[in-house]
Amino acid sequence: MEGKQERHQTKPIRCIVKLGGAAITCKNELEKINEESLDIVSTQLRQAMISGPSPSTKGPGMDWSKRHGESEVFCTEDDFGEDAFVDSSRFVVVHGAGSFGHFQASKSGVHKGGLGQPLVKAGFVATRISVTSLNLEIVRALAREGIPSIGMSPFTCGWSTSERNIASADLSMVAKAIDSGFIPGWRLSWMYFTLLGADSFLPPRFCMEMLCLMNYRFGPYVLGVYDRPPVEPNAVLLREIAVHDDGSWDVVKPVLQNMTKVETTVAAHDTTGGMMTKITEAAMIARLGIDVYIVKAATSYSLRALSGELRGNIPDDWFGTVIRFMS
Amino acid sequence: MEGKQERHQTKPIRCIVKLGGAAITCKNELEKINEESLDIVSTQLRQAMISGPSPSTKGPGMDWSKRHGESEVFCTEDDFGEDAFVDSSRFVVVHGAGSFGHFQASKSGVHKGGLGQPLVKAGFVATRISVTSLNLEIVRALAREGIPSIGMSPFTCGWSTSERNIASADLSMVAKAIDSGFIPGWRLSWMYFTLLGADSFLPPRFCMEMLCLMNYRFGPYVLGVYDRPPVEPNAVLLREIAVHDDGSWDVVKPVLQNMTKVETTVAAHDTTGGMMTKITEAAMIARLGIDVYIVKAATSYSLRALSGELRGNIPDDWFGTVIRFMS
Repeated sequence: MEGKQERHQTKPIRCIVKLGGAAITCKNELEKINEESLDIVSTQLRQAMISGPSPSTKGPGMDWSKRHGESEVFCTEDDFGEDAFVDSSRFVVVHGAGSFGHFQASKSGVHKGGLGQPLVKAGFVATRISVTSLNLEIVRALAREGIPSIGMSPFTCGWSTSERNIASADLSMVAKAIDSGFIPGWRLSWMYFTLLGADSFLPPRFCMEMLCLMNYRFGPYVLGVYDRPPVEPNAVLLREIAVHDDGSWDVVKPVLQNMTKVETTVAAHDTTGGMMTKITEAAMIARLGIDVYIVKAATSYSLRALSGELRGNIPDDWFGTVIRFMS
Repeated sequence: MEGKQERHQTKPIRCIVKLGGAAITCKNELEKINEESLDIVSTQLRQAMISGPSPSTKGPGMDWSKRHGESEVFCTEDDFGEDAFVDSSRFVVVHGAGSFGHFQASKSGVHKGGLGQPLVKAGFVATRISVTSLNLEIVRALAREGIPSIGMSPFTCGWSTSERNIASADLSMVAKAIDSGFIPGWRLSWMYFTLLGADSFLPPRFCMEMLCLMNYRFGPYVLGVYDRPPVEPNAVLLREIAVHDDGSWDVVKPVLQNMTKVETTVAAHDTTGGMMTKITEAAMIARLGIDVYIVKAATSYSLRALSGELRGNIPDDWFGTVIRFMS
């Protein structure tokens, strides 16, 4: 009863959710979706979109396509009442590529540029086919869960990159999709991960309040960002990081001896398994007033992050990394 | 030898090719690609793109994704030399939906509008999933043939419709893709066929010289546009139609008794199985100086239309319908 009341008091928040490539694909098998993880993530997203009292009710599916090996088309059109919908307007989903696109990109060197060369051009086409098929499967998984999703490609939205940073972007179509009540299921990493880093996505145009990065990168016991590569013994989970006006940041929780008030320029010679870069990028977003949560996908922690219940104090029984502005 | 010389003398033309839904899918089976027809069409497109002396050589494939039931990824990266490429910059491919999207659209009534209703919104998502999967398969077929193709959705390109006509369109990304040497594989019928008629696509921005509509609508013996529904006895194939300055048009070949100098306003009360509407739309395009060919897909006639050899006189042994401007 108490839990329900708390749920009602939680203010709905506008949120960008990034599904890490390793969280939704099987990293060690080429072009293989992690169906179980993707299904759980989709269910959690649906639960987070329901502000009413029945978060466990599954909605009518919106993927009415044939599945492989079946001749019938699956359709649930009789189930659609006026209350059939989730409030998806507060969410944008982006995703990494995982085991899709990687092979094609590395075979052709497409991430290094040089589209004039035949092999690179072919690799561009091959990479795009691979990540498009992943994007379609993610949209289908969300649609099966009853979330109205529209797949969008940064390429056709006028995105372009220069030296791996976003040079130009026209987000009007994303805004239009959201205004129409659709949730854009976006593959920011349309061109293999390095070309267009999903984490450098800038959300303020949508007045987003939260960026939730769902990871699964280093195995089942890694819950967020650590002070050193998490495979090392004594690696400590950084649970709360405060970002200041001048862009510098502190680890607030737990209190560490060697890592307080680290300057962002440290990122250039990162020795902590890429995580310093991750914190620096997250800090840039947090400075805009957008809380950043880095959390293990498909866990109770990711569900709680999506629900918005962590906006105030971080409970002791929640594990993950929160990066937020504190003036 | 003579044939080869003729080939060299043919001037390459800029062309929009529309693959009719019935030409690339199995009309009577839900979400089923007509693999044979699609493969032939792709091969013909590749042949039309080669201006050199070896039109029959198949290029190295660009679909390096896993196929169903196979664990290995197919990749031909060793085959890419400097001469591996076709000149795809002269082509834009658009396609209909056929047996994809139709079921989802009619179940939900999405073609009638009303996205605020839950069932219509779900139908929009379901339809889009279905036609996106078709688009991906077409891009893969073109890529397997060695044609560098990029799938683009009108939705994400800023297209919008009003009363089934195109209200606004930003084609800059299509132009950009062409400039980069990619062939956009576009599904104009992203939202079931009636919402955004592929035939109302206006090509002059690309200085296109030819629009090739590849049909397969009324069975194997229908080669173009007829003077009455082609299932009727005595139906006559209209082989050449001349469009005039004032928008009116004549059937030039063969000479008909009841159908000369028909005004375009006739389209409103069309009694010839929708074909009068087709001619009227084609005439609007032809008036811009763009030859329109309506031809049966995957035949020697479609290959000859794509090659550009019909730009002058129409040979007696070519069957199809040509609609073009004659001042």
